[in-house]
Amino acid sequence: MSIRNLVENNGLVLPQAPMPVGNYVATLNAGNLLFISGQLPIINGELVYTGQLGKELTTQLGKMAAELCALNLLSQIENSLGTRKLKSVVKIEGYINARESFTDHAEVLNGASDLISTILTDKSGHIRTVVGCTSLPMNAAVEISAIVELE
Amino acid sequence: MSIRNLVENNGLVLPQAPMPVGNYVATLNAGNLLFISGQLPIINGELVYTGQLGKELTTQLGKMAAELCALNLLSQIENSLGTRKLKSVVKIEGYINARESFTDHAEVLNGASDLISTILTDKSGHIRTVVGCTSLPMNAAVEISAIVELE
Amino acid sequence: MSIRNLVENNGLVLPQAPMPVGNYVATLNAGNLLFISGQLPIINGELVYTGQLGKELTTQLGKMAAELCALNLLSQIENSLGTRKLKSVVKIEGYINARESFTDHAEVLNGASDLISTILTDKSGHIRTVVGCTSLPMNAAVEISAIVELE
Repeated sequence: MSIRNLVENNGLVLPQAPMPVGNYVATLNAGNLLFISGQLPIINGELVYTGQLGKELTTQLGKMAAELCALNLLSQIENSLGTRKLKSVVKIEGYINARESFTDHAEVLNGASDLISTILTDKSGHIRTVVGCTSLPMNAAVEISAIVELE
Repeated sequence: MSIRNLVENNGLVLPQAPMPVGNYVATLNAGNLLFISGQLPIINGELVYTGQLGKELTTQLGKMAAELCALNLLSQIENSLGTRKLKSVVKIEGYINARESFTDHAEVLNGASDLISTILTDKSGHIRTVVGCTSLPMNAAVEISAIVELE
Repeated sequence: MSIRNLVENNGLVLPQAPMPVGNYVATLNAGNLLFISGQLPIINGELVYTGQLGKELTTQLGKMAAELCALNLLSQIENSLGTRKLKSVVKIEGYINARESFTDHAEVLNGASDLISTILTDKSGHIRTVVGCTSLPMNAAVEISAIVELE
């Protein structure tokens, strides 16, 4: 079953994969690894979640931003698979636009980990890092990149 | 010789590997690479070093936090090896909870690099990145993730 | 043609590859992947671009800093190739010393992506991440690390 079908079976919509904003590519294959550029919480070209966690944004909104980044990662993976098959998500790298006083990074990134786990089930297993940033491109609330393994 | 033995031969104790705090795993294998989730300076479930470098924490304390993160990385690797053998540490990614005025990131992360070098000797060789973050999960002082190669 | 020749054919000079500042290495091979430590905007041992984007530094200066980081990455790759050949740049990770109000991360990192694209043409394709940091080693304006694939 395609990633799109898996997403839709969970009552969600796979967004159109955002285009790169420079001389780089959205995804790149090296051997059995597929690397995916940092995804922002964008739908149809519009950045939906902006601002800082611990300032304008609550942890709940940050979590929703992380879910949207994860959907964009899934969309990029779907676009890149061609005839290959996903074996497992390997790593997600979460960057949170956060104030010095913010401490709920894990909870925000769980928005992405939970969604990936729900959609990809036994292929979702990933390690992760999550840190707080002073600022992100276009004042995005969250940015998430990933590495996945193909069969 | 096991990583645990190597650690103990150096007069240190290998901490219990911290559990993930969400729908992800502590370590994941892809081919000959083993990816390890970001580790915090935790012992027995307690976060030992919190706060910011250049504010509450001195570079020396930051270095000790980085050493503890490195011990947790080694503990995760030990737990994951099974019958496989470590070939080399490949990359460590250091994230330091730091004020704008802080500049000693390299010195702090040397706490981790020196410890890994002492314990793993000819298998310790790694490249690294180190940056300053506004904030880290649970106000941790340092977070370090790693990629290692297996034989 | 060597990376040095490609750089010089574009009217640029390949800087001497900076030395690591601790118990780690500048580059490390794992299978067909070559990992490169975070590079700062250094020439001949001197850090040329310091300070924060959105404070002392304009986006244009940040972009020049990113170009210099990219040249240092190319110099490290050139030093490490030996008899092997570069297949493609896989990933660049950009860290920008930036104020909370800064939003032009993509434009700054385009300094690196554009340079890599100009020099390596069909071997330049890479995915990337870019985030804002409170601080970087020695108050560097930009730090960039990379993963490349060898043939």
